[in-house]
Amino acid sequence: MASLKRFLVGSPIRTARLAHERLTKKTALAIFASDALSSTAYATEQILLVLAAAYVAGQAGAFSRVVPISLAICGLLVIVALSYRQTVYAYPSGGGAFIVAKDNLGTLPGLVAGASLLVDYVLTVSVSIAAGVEAITSAMVGTRFMGLHEHRVLLCLFFIMFIMLANLRGVREAGSLFAAPSYAFIFSFLCLIGFGLVRYYMNPGIVPLPNEADLKIAEGYQAQPLDLLLLLGAFANGCAALTGIEAISNGIQAFKKPESKNAATTLMWMAALLIVLFLGASVLAHLFKIHPMGHETVISQIGRVVFTGSFGWFYYVVQATTAAILILAANTSFAGFPRLASLLARDRFLPRQLSNLGDRLVFSNGIVLLAVFSGVLVWAFRGDTSRLIPLYAVGVFLSFTLSQAGMMVHWWREGKAQQAARAAGTASSSGEPGAEKSSHWRKSLVINSIGASVTFVVLMVFILTKFLHGAWIVVVLIPLLVLMFLRIHKHYFQVAQQLSTVGLEGLRPIHHEVIVPISGIHRGVIAALEYAKSIAPHHVTAVYVNLDDEATQKLREKWQQWGSGVNLVVVASPYRSLLRPFLNYVDRVKRSSHGEVVTIVLPEFVPARWWQNLLHNQNTLFLKGALLFKKGVVVTNVPYHLDR
Amino acid sequence: MASLKRFLVGSPIRTARLAHERLTKKTALAIFASDALSSTAYATEQILLVLAAAYVAGQAGAFSRVVPISLAICGLLVIVALSYRQTVYAYPSGGGAFIVAKDNLGTLPGLVAGASLLVDYVLTVSVSIAAGVEAITSAMVGTRFMGLHEHRVLLCLFFIMFIMLANLRGVREAGSLFAAPSYAFIFSFLCLIGFGLVRYYMNPGIVPLPNEADLKIAEGYQAQPLDLLLLLGAFANGCAALTGIEAISNGIQAFKKPESKNAATTLMWMAALLIVLFLGASVLAHLFKIHPMGHETVISQIGRVVFTGSFGWFYYVVQATTAAILILAANTSFAGFPRLASLLARDRFLPRQLSNLGDRLVFSNGIVLLAVFSGVLVWAFRGDTSRLIPLYAVGVFLSFTLSQAGMMVHWWREGKAQQAARAAGTASSSGEPGAEKSSHWRKSLVINSIGASVTFVVLMVFILTKFLHGAWIVVVLIPLLVLMFLRIHKHYFQVAQQLSTVGLEGLRPIHHEVIVPISGIHRGVIAALEYAKSIAPHHVTAVYVNLDDEATQKLREKWQQWGSGVNLVVVASPYRSLLRPFLNYVDRVKRSSHGEVVTIVLPEFVPARWWQNLLHNQNTLFLKGALLFKKGVVVTNVPYHLDR
Repeated sequence: MASLKRFLVGSPIRTARLAHERLTKKTALAIFASDALSSTAYATEQILLVLAAAYVAGQAGAFSRVVPISLAICGLLVIVALSYRQTVYAYPSGGGAFIVAKDNLGTLPGLVAGASLLVDYVLTVSVSIAAGVEAITSAMVGTRFMGLHEHRVLLCLFFIMFIMLANLRGVREAGSLFAAPSYAFIFSFLCLIGFGLVRYYMNPGIVPLPNEADLKIAEGYQAQPLDLLLLLGAFANGCAALTGIEAISNGIQAFKKPESKNAATTLMWMAALLIVLFLGASVLAHLFKIHPMGHETVISQIGRVVFTGSFGWFYYVVQATTAAILILAANTSFAGFPRLASLLARDRFLPRQLSNLGDRLVFSNGIVLLAVFSGVLVWAFRGDTSRLIPLYAVGVFLSFTLSQAGMMVHWWREGKAQQAARAAGTASSSGEPGAEKSSHWRKSLVINSIGASVTFVVLMVFILTKFLHGAWIVVVLIPLLVLMFLRIHKHYFQVAQQLSTVGLEGLRPIHHEVIVPISGIHRGVIAALEYAKSIAPHHVTAVYVNLDDEATQKLREKWQQWGSGVNLVVVASPYRSLLRPFLNYVDRVKRSSHGEVVTIVLPEFVPARWWQNLLHNQNTLFLKGALLFKKGVVVTNVPYHLDR
Repeated sequence: MASLKRFLVGSPIRTARLAHERLTKKTALAIFASDALSSTAYATEQILLVLAAAYVAGQAGAFSRVVPISLAICGLLVIVALSYRQTVYAYPSGGGAFIVAKDNLGTLPGLVAGASLLVDYVLTVSVSIAAGVEAITSAMVGTRFMGLHEHRVLLCLFFIMFIMLANLRGVREAGSLFAAPSYAFIFSFLCLIGFGLVRYYMNPGIVPLPNEADLKIAEGYQAQPLDLLLLLGAFANGCAALTGIEAISNGIQAFKKPESKNAATTLMWMAALLIVLFLGASVLAHLFKIHPMGHETVISQIGRVVFTGSFGWFYYVVQATTAAILILAANTSFAGFPRLASLLARDRFLPRQLSNLGDRLVFSNGIVLLAVFSGVLVWAFRGDTSRLIPLYAVGVFLSFTLSQAGMMVHWWREGKAQQAARAAGTASSSGEPGAEKSSHWRKSLVINSIGASVTFVVLMVFILTKFLHGAWIVVVLIPLLVLMFLRIHKHYFQVAQQLSTVGLEGLRPIHHEVIVPISGIHRGVIAALEYAKSIAPHHVTAVYVNLDDEATQKLREKWQQWGSGVNLVVVASPYRSLLRPFLNYVDRVKRSSHGEVVTIVLPEFVPARWWQNLLHNQNTLFLKGALLFKKGVVVTNVPYHLDR
């Protein structure tokens, strides 16, 4: 087992190397942007899936609404990105929604943000992996590997396992693993858009006939007119494009110094790229009149139209890089989830095991937990992206809103503090920078206020349009998670109270009685008796449970030789049980010992091979279990090792 | 859990009641004969299934051979029953094949007999339960419950569970539960035969047309001429009727006194009944030209022909009592298997847990084990009797042969001893009884010699005709079981040697070092330090693993107040592991302590609720596991109980 772990995960890394595990901007873009950018692989399709409900109802032009909806989403994206840029500078040590909300709004909003983010991380893994696998199975349409579609859940689980292992090896090694696919995706997707536009304007007549038989509609929708609610639903679905934009603000500490500046630059690059790729895909889908289909993704259909003839092979490049970035996008969460869980664990809202750095300097427990949860989700939703999407953005936008609202309070407080300082006359030494700062907090306050309001409205739209389609699961889950956090916190607080040394004044002397349960006289028992005599020479009692009068008589005779003055007590057992009569005896001793400690010295022989344990009564084990719950009883194992 | 066990199994019974748990002849017949008698429900069918291979090949008269084959089997039955009657008298304390073979032929043949019997018991349960369920599903043919046939594996498992629970309650209660169905079966089957014969001779023309479409052939057979091999195969299959005849000789001790006489009488009654029922069924099958069918048993077909019109309801009585006795026949094994397993365990050939009487005075572990094995078998063979039959009789006839061979040696030795005694002149006081005894052992030797030869020949026939059809499984399994017995025996022997007190001369004084691993200073740690000082006032060392220099510095400061003179050692941990550095320290102390005992006192807090364990590092648990395998290390748990 141990060597398998070493082979998969690598050798341990010394704590001293912790500071060196930082990322350059280029690598950071590959790691943190992969989530946000990869959503372009499915965001356009999620809009079309909702619009399909109107198309089916006879409105042939319904799909053309994809362009204005995408533009609206890009506007929202600009607002959110600018808002987070503020956060990156204000919280250089890492300002995830959890920290910002906790610092400025209080513990409860902080925990709500934390719960939303945890849920979001799990969903990011599930959705990205599912979409990545769809990109692969789409490329197989028309080939003899078309049956791969049936095995997508298995494929998803395989990829989740793969990323988990990559992350257990450590963050930098994971980064170098993921840089190439990210940049390859950006390149091939830009080619797709460029070639697509050129092709359309050179030859606008070439448009494929959509396969109406396989037309797919979003989960929970039926044929209906193109009303406001449907447009809002399409908009909400498309907002999946925004997920992952907050990743950088959670992970500023992973950047090389200066962390904030590098993180902010990376954030802006990411937003710009995201707008180009997402809008490009939506425009192409509109120009080539792409319809959403059950067995092939929208991006795959665009690729087939754009790259024909001697460029046909580039279609496979697009699909491969799309699959690669989607599957690796899940990696964002494998960096973020364990880090957030460790923050929550450090504040005692999650089990403290989650705050332990593993032997490769990563939070191993959090990584494994994320893999398990996302694996279960993929399995439960049969690896279908469109069924997972309604669950997705509630957590995202809830954390956006709380984070921006927290930033509003942050700037407001900073403004108040500056005004108070100036009123107190301390601004005299630096008049000009003070004024600059003054205008700075006002501007920031305005930006974050707009961000908070807009994301709150989108959150409401989301809950309104997606509640019945699955969002209710998240709406129910987040409060439950918060309750769990509080319950865990209370427990740790109570433990600390109960373990506090307040009121104690040093070590007190202890008096104790020693009891040795014996099953006969053999070397194991003799070792235990010797030990018992050494820790309390004059307070040892050997206890024998009488199951057979004859055997008991023999033991009494042998005791003359071996007892060495140790008191032998024989207890009766009318029901042939060993444990019950012995435990009753221990209780009697405890009652008469006036608060003294009772030590049970257990003779135990340790077989040389594991299977030999099956050949011996497990009485010692049961006894240990039963004694664990008795107060004032100390259990001592005296092992006797067998050689063969 | 405990109360569920009490509800299903009943309250514990005192050891003092052991002698009273004995059976009257009538109850014993119901319990021990149910296996043997119930085989009449399928034995005729097993013969017909083989003959069907010739019928399909065009030999229309093939099925008529069922009567002579059945007569041959009855002859064999008489020989075996008379042989076992000898055993019952020679071994009044219970003379199963295991004991007889071990006493007279040696340990190895005894173990072979024991292994055969264990396999046979498991198969008895599987075959009886499967046949019982077939009786039920046959009765459903033509009704709307016909689909029950598809769920027969589930039904089988349910009945196995039911019998297991009945037996866990204790042998006499199980006996009274089973007496009524056994006698009901005997009565209804006798009625079936009587009515059948009357009906045939009053109205010989009435013969149903067999449903050729559903004709079933024995597993592994194809259309072939009616040659000697086929007849031998049919004979071997029919020998399933003999299984269970040895049950009484295994369980003589369960009879009321005089045990041997009561057991012998019961055995003869059982043999007589068996001959009547089995021959009756075969004759009726021949007279009514019954063909074996896939969905309905032969007995069910006979019942439908015999009971028509206003007697139609009695068909259901036959099916119900057949199913009942078959399902309860499995009970024979639930009495025999645990008893044999406990004998083997007492001789240290099986884990000693199997020799423990449970709290209802039954060998609970053996009962549960049998239920598990037979359940797996029924599941693996899809609850099909005809697929289980080839596995069945190898073990039965192997144990018959060994048992009879053992009896041969037994009588031979007794004869030699008597001759020697007479030669020495001790027979002078009682001349006449001596001569009577003399002729007695000769007669017995002849009977058992015939028994041994005949059963050996049948065993060979069985292996010859059934090897490829499944008997090979048992032929392979029995030697493996014997190997396991020997391996287990060797282990127990070695343990006894290693634990022997030979060479020791009394308790020696021990010197020991005490090490307390600490994670900080809290009440749990203080309790552990107090305890450690009490058992070795001047040899205590506290060990702290340095994971964080700052925390270590704080601890050193606090130690001034709390250390009370205890030596504090801080060990480094470059890889953030707690266990490894501590274990290394323990190893260093052990190396420098010249054979002294090292005691590790582990502070451990016990949470108030089970789920709280998830919130704490399981370091103590891992530590205990790692320390278990170090020689000369004693582990002491000092629990600190949390209230909330």
